[in-house]
Amino acid sequence: MSLTEPLPLGLSRRAAWAREQAISYLMAQAVENRDVVSLAAGLVDEQTLPVELCRALTAELFSDDQRARAALQYGTTPGAESLRQEVLRLLARLEGGTTEDLRISAEQVVLTAGSQQLLSLVADTLFDPGDICFVSAPTYFVFLGVLNGVGARTIAIPSDNDGMIVDALAAELQVVADRGELDRVKLIYVVSDFENPSGICLSAERRKQLVALAEIWSARQRIHILEDAAYRELRYDGGPLPSIWGYDQSRESVILAQTFSKSFSPGVRVGFGIFPRGLVGPVCNRKGNEDFGSPHLNQLLIAEALRSGRYEQHVESVRQGYRRKRDAFLAALDEHFADLPG
Amino acid sequence: MSLTEPLPLGLSRRAAWAREQAISYLMAQAVENRDVVSLAAGLVDEQTLPVELCRALTAELFSDDQRARAALQYGTTPGAESLRQEVLRLLARLEGGTTEDLRISAEQVVLTAGSQQLLSLVADTLFDPGDICFVSAPTYFVFLGVLNGVGARTIAIPSDNDGMIVDALAAELQVVADRGELDRVKLIYVVSDFENPSGICLSAERRKQLVALAEIWSARQRIHILEDAAYRELRYDGGPLPSIWGYDQSRESVILAQTFSKSFSPGVRVGFGIFPRGLVGPVCNRKGNEDFGSPHLNQLLIAEALRSGRYEQHVESVRQGYRRKRDAFLAALDEHFADLPG
Repeated sequence: MSLTEPLPLGLSRRAAWAREQAISYLMAQAVENRDVVSLAAGLVDEQTLPVELCRALTAELFSDDQRARAALQYGTTPGAESLRQEVLRLLARLEGGTTEDLRISAEQVVLTAGSQQLLSLVADTLFDPGDICFVSAPTYFVFLGVLNGVGARTIAIPSDNDGMIVDALAAELQVVADRGELDRVKLIYVVSDFENPSGICLSAERRKQLVALAEIWSARQRIHILEDAAYRELRYDGGPLPSIWGYDQSRESVILAQTFSKSFSPGVRVGFGIFPRGLVGPVCNRKGNEDFGSPHLNQLLIAEALRSGRYEQHVESVRQGYRRKRDAFLAALDEHFADLPG
Repeated sequence: MSLTEPLPLGLSRRAAWAREQAISYLMAQAVENRDVVSLAAGLVDEQTLPVELCRALTAELFSDDQRARAALQYGTTPGAESLRQEVLRLLARLEGGTTEDLRISAEQVVLTAGSQQLLSLVADTLFDPGDICFVSAPTYFVFLGVLNGVGARTIAIPSDNDGMIVDALAAELQVVADRGELDRVKLIYVVSDFENPSGICLSAERRKQLVALAEIWSARQRIHILEDAAYRELRYDGGPLPSIWGYDQSRESVILAQTFSKSFSPGVRVGFGIFPRGLVGPVCNRKGNEDFGSPHLNQLLIAEALRSGRYEQHVESVRQGYRRKRDAFLAALDEHFADLPG
């Protein structure tokens, strides 16, 4: 071996599959160049970040010796019980019912480092190399990287103004089944509200159809739906829509991923997943290997924001802030581009 | 399929390999039963947790509007530049030299969710199923779970009062090479200070030998050493020892993993790794998939604790607290068990 040739590092196949996430580059560009207004990285509008609220929450927490010591101690792998209970209450509100209507327990809530860790854990728990995931075209590019990173095959399903075309998905499932590969199909990934990058919401009718379709094709092995609802609470007009998860009467088909990054603060970085009962153990086992628990302090801060109602107030102010920006943007488009042909 | 038989979930091989980490159970037992004094889970003594310090740090941070907004915004995949610079200064202090003596840049520091995520990222970056890791017997059981979780083979090397017996490791390397499997050897894992569970430190002589041995057997592919120095700063008597990493003149062989969980707060949950230059990209690519960055807020809190010197003061008080407990424990053993035969 020549002296100029570096010694091979013995990297794993997964290292080769991972490649650099474009999001890592985009975030670094946006965070390190404060005078750039990046529309690519998904930063939260800094003017809406809850500075006052976090000052109050931390001051309260660290003035209560017992709560403070608990926050600074280890938590558990699935996360703080208090926040998991609050997540149930939040979810009930978003679904337009009571916590009893949810028909799940707090044990089915898993707290993660943003929803990204949730998406990654699901991929790791379900996909062997060569397994198949259906996604909308176009969809969230970061999850496509995650799928590459576990060696999964991605099959793109076209979408229209109502989101993923469920009939096209049905046709593709038939093609895969005819090839004898149905047992390799593990997941259907959908950003249900404000799909990234198209901004489209999956229509209520399609949500129902999607759950039914996944059920039909799960005769011999479960095909899960991963519903990425990161932007769910940032609806600028009208109330919340029921999730795809809400249409899953069995509570066995849909994994619902949400996050407090977009609605509260990405620097606090708490996301969560709602899991079918049978997946909780396997996902927590993988999380036990990855970090055996996300920061307890951050979980308790968000739990208190939710418990005291200050979270909901904050989200309303975030919605107002973004609504103003959206309206200004549309007005400017009208003013400056309305006379363009086509 | 009968109605009583649950539908297969289509879990991955990695899900099957993960199993439940005993640490998840031990943490849950310790955290949820506040009247149990658990010596198993590795909780930090609650009386030493930095409640006052964190109250001051958060009050300062959230009173400075610009810093607060930065803390609540996304960070980057490898972590906050300010903390990575402070880590270099901390490391220089622990190694007994200047930051220039380290001969690395802040780009070789990667910030993680505790050192556990670091250990997990290294395993994911290096091991294909069937690859080999050498470990001391006995060693940190959680990392053995991580190795199982990626399908690695573990070969145990006996240890004595000076830690892993390097001659025994050399003999095992020869056995593996004779089997034609040297290219499957990716890593040697060592808890250098206060090995868990034995409490033994690897002697200075062995540290030097270990680096030399890894170099010798890296003729065609790098065999890395993963030095887990989680307890490094909790030395109750005498000053810090140079790390195994310190003996690696090439800065190409050793990955050094440390954490602020044991010395500061596990609820803040920040760990870090020092990487050979060539591994930084691959490890960050995997981290880009897992979470594209640990909580920025927590990183900035620790950075300020370090910058202002309050971290070092705190660690000294932690050492004093544990030293008192150690002395009381030894005195009680002397008093009550000294007359036992053997």
